[in-house]
Amino acid sequence: MSKWYIKNGKESDVVASVRVRLARNLKGYPFPNKMTLEQKCEVIQKVSDAILNGNSAISGDFKFIDMDKISRIEAYSMVERHLISPDFAENGQGRALLLLNDESVSIMINEEDHIRIQVMAAGLDFEAAYDIANKIDVLLESNMQFAFDENLGYLTECPTNLGTGMRASAMLHIPALEAAGAVGQLSNTISKIGLTMRGTYGEGSKIKCAMYQVSNQVTLGISETAAIENLQGIIKQIMERERQTRLSIDHDNLEDTVYRAYGVLKSARLMSGNEFFDLVSQLRLGVGMGIIDTVAMETVNELILKCQPASLQNTAGGPLDADTRDKLRARIVRETLA
Amino acid sequence: MSKWYIKNGKESDVVASVRVRLARNLKGYPFPNKMTLEQKCEVIQKVSDAILNGNSAISGDFKFIDMDKISRIEAYSMVERHLISPDFAENGQGRALLLLNDESVSIMINEEDHIRIQVMAAGLDFEAAYDIANKIDVLLESNMQFAFDENLGYLTECPTNLGTGMRASAMLHIPALEAAGAVGQLSNTISKIGLTMRGTYGEGSKIKCAMYQVSNQVTLGISETAAIENLQGIIKQIMERERQTRLSIDHDNLEDTVYRAYGVLKSARLMSGNEFFDLVSQLRLGVGMGIIDTVAMETVNELILKCQPASLQNTAGGPLDADTRDKLRARIVRETLA
Repeated sequence: MSKWYIKNGKESDVVASVRVRLARNLKGYPFPNKMTLEQKCEVIQKVSDAILNGNSAISGDFKFIDMDKISRIEAYSMVERHLISPDFAENGQGRALLLLNDESVSIMINEEDHIRIQVMAAGLDFEAAYDIANKIDVLLESNMQFAFDENLGYLTECPTNLGTGMRASAMLHIPALEAAGAVGQLSNTISKIGLTMRGTYGEGSKIKCAMYQVSNQVTLGISETAAIENLQGIIKQIMERERQTRLSIDHDNLEDTVYRAYGVLKSARLMSGNEFFDLVSQLRLGVGMGIIDTVAMETVNELILKCQPASLQNTAGGPLDADTRDKLRARIVRETLA
Repeated sequence: MSKWYIKNGKESDVVASVRVRLARNLKGYPFPNKMTLEQKCEVIQKVSDAILNGNSAISGDFKFIDMDKISRIEAYSMVERHLISPDFAENGQGRALLLLNDESVSIMINEEDHIRIQVMAAGLDFEAAYDIANKIDVLLESNMQFAFDENLGYLTECPTNLGTGMRASAMLHIPALEAAGAVGQLSNTISKIGLTMRGTYGEGSKIKCAMYQVSNQVTLGISETAAIENLQGIIKQIMERERQTRLSIDHDNLEDTVYRAYGVLKSARLMSGNEFFDLVSQLRLGVGMGIIDTVAMETVNELILKCQPASLQNTAGGPLDADTRDKLRARIVRETLA
């Protein structure tokens, strides 16, 4: 079954993907950080029974992963694919993951909350992602009782998730705004209207790949649909600003830059992660603008996921030193773009 | 007729080409810097008659070029192809060139001496170059009387050419020795045994393309054959040192460097002359070492000649500003390597 990210999405020149996450907890159990291992196992049992043995059409497409039984490399490669949180990868005991074969849906059991339903979709498609998240939510709720308060809504371990328990986010590729130095101010503006923007790869001034995640922060006193609509409205504005800024770049230089990046990606025999992110960002820009038409956007998105450290080591089947990783990264890049 | 440099030569991984030049003057005429225009025209007439109307098998393959009738761009593109000297390109009046169709033989008339026979050959093939130069010399001498002294040999305007009037040189590509910082000392050693070594492209610390010309300096008291043998012996030593040094470079890094250079050459849309020389030197190294086997050495040699400023403008049919030149250079490189 091909993965969700090998699909072309709407507005994919700027919006790489969206994600909708719902936090849910079972009534009658403390939050995971206060649970005994026995209680954790009970929750795992209930949730996985509901999904795997339910009447849903997709039940058979889920696999159950005991987080205590997989390698650190495999777990961290799932972090890199945004399927689980770093904390969930770090401490596996009493934790399980239900993962849809195409990796568009992952259900973390006993992370910060009992249940974290996460749905990803390529491009700007919150409708699709929310629709699936909602269906899974309904399926689970028909099998168990969620901790819910008439006034507060869904109860969650962290108060910032109270209410809808929903966090929606979009992964935006905004190299032109970044190059124009516009990201800082954009981030400030966005934070004033209840949204958050942060770099996806790298930290602080070392943001790589010009990928930024924009997400809603407000979960209380607003419906899921309204929260997504707000978020989507802002994303569309950022998208248009990015596109305008792209068009203002000198075309000859832009063409030269993206083709050079493409050329080096197709040719290099050794490539660090930092260089990879810089080059693949340029390639993505070239593909998004139609300058390079021999590479599909899905291929670029797939490449970004495949070439991170843990995913590389997972592909290799074991730990690799940095030099060997750089060699393998270069090879995978060449083969993917060949 | 395809050009001489689109041929593969012996030892071409290190030796790009060789050149043999004979300086001759006609008896009964002053040297060119003291001649009247009328006398110059007489010399042009005599020499070109001998070549163009001679019984030689190659007479029909020569063309006559009045240096006063060609554009500066065309003249300088011939300097870049080593067919004529910069001074010969600069001042055309009373000067003519006889050029073999494949450009392996050029005969400058009224440069510093009345006649400068120049023969080039791909790779380390002094025998071929000297043989042709000698045949042309014999052909000319059968039609006119050269200024010759029993003791001094052929008389030339500059005393450094007295005797054989021969200057033999080889164009060596020695990127590994250059990177190892060994060129300076090599050049010193060579100068002590009557040879000269100098960068072909760029000057001083800005030598480009790692191409160095090694030539004999002694023309008096030594036969042509002995001079060539001396030179060839030293060239073979340099060649072996270069090859050894190449093998001592870390293979992974080397492979990465040459493939990156190849990738950028095939991809860039804008390319300065300096960058071109750096990259093409790496490409040449990769081809010479068999790391890159999809590009022929002849193609690399041709590329180096085609991509210099005057040759680019000659191809374009007129003067170009630097930006347009960089764009055209990038296009020609891509098309040549496609």
